[in-house]
Amino acid sequence: MTNARRSGPDLTEAIMRTTLELGQELGYAKLSIEAIAARAGVGKHTIYRRWPSKGALLLDSLLSLSESALDHPDTGDLLVDLRTQIYEAVDLLAGAPFSPLFKALVGEAQHDPGVAAALNERFIAPQADKTVARLKAARDQDQLSPDFDLDVAMAILSGPLYFRLLITQEPLTHEYVDRILDALFTGMGPRP
Amino acid sequence: MTNARRSGPDLTEAIMRTTLELGQELGYAKLSIEAIAARAGVGKHTIYRRWPSKGALLLDSLLSLSESALDHPDTGDLLVDLRTQIYEAVDLLAGAPFSPLFKALVGEAQHDPGVAAALNERFIAPQADKTVARLKAARDQDQLSPDFDLDVAMAILSGPLYFRLLITQEPLTHEYVDRILDALFTGMGPRP
Repeated sequence: MTNARRSGPDLTEAIMRTTLELGQELGYAKLSIEAIAARAGVGKHTIYRRWPSKGALLLDSLLSLSESALDHPDTGDLLVDLRTQIYEAVDLLAGAPFSPLFKALVGEAQHDPGVAAALNERFIAPQADKTVARLKAARDQDQLSPDFDLDVAMAILSGPLYFRLLITQEPLTHEYVDRILDALFTGMGPRP
Repeated sequence: MTNARRSGPDLTEAIMRTTLELGQELGYAKLSIEAIAARAGVGKHTIYRRWPSKGALLLDSLLSLSESALDHPDTGDLLVDLRTQIYEAVDLLAGAPFSPLFKALVGEAQHDPGVAAALNERFIAPQADKTVARLKAARDQDQLSPDFDLDVAMAILSGPLYFRLLITQEPLTHEYVDRILDALFTGMGPRP
């Protein structure tokens, strides 16, 4: 029993690391709790005690990669800070092992309401809160249009990224981020 | 043989109608070419001659519902016309039978490059062309910011809709469309 001495947090981390490794090797469809348990050297029930499903385990494993990438810096310049944060976010979204596994998870969320809810509560909502907090600070410093609707900020900033990741599947580059930010800051409306 | 007399276009239409009916009854995962063939009263090979896969057949069936909803009116007022067109698009995207089957197809596109390519070539690209054409006409009439980047117009206008449809899964309402359009026309940038 190579894992007999591992304690709770270590074991949790080892299982999540194994999930990402095996997910990358096998792809989401072929990934199974059995295979993860075997590779991690634990029993299936050890996994099921912590996670109700493959989707929930994968979501936690992906979140463990994403923690620092989703913080918003505040240097006092909104556009610079948004650019920095969104570059990090797209590097995460578009890179291995995150990208194919995250896309598979979003696919799963289309027919599994539990996965959809977890994705929103644990991944999207915390990001939206951070984004809105940063935008509010910028508004107080006259760096944001006073009429801009903060309730749709996350949809407007993230929507074009997910559109490219999930729909057109073109590369999520920094240049694309620049063009999106330029277009959003310019706005579509004619000059007064 | 109830279908012995059906000609090509009639048969194609009957198979697509059956695909949508059965898709609504069974859901995408349980939908099969066998079941569609049996319900439509044709042989499997009749279907496979026209469509290489369940995804391709479903895409065509969905496209048959979407043709008119995706045209852009031109009354001379860009904001009014975008609102009209996007209302129609979200009514289609959010309504039955389109919504659950389209979401399943996008899920399929996350691991099937053929479905992803067909979705883009047949559904997204034609819409993008129509959107850009309408925006160019508006720019010539000073109804659009002259600096707005038309290459990202489709991502910016559609991204927030797909974000809500696929990620947050909140209702795609006309009120949401209004808020998105207001935010995009206002722009995020501070007042000069």
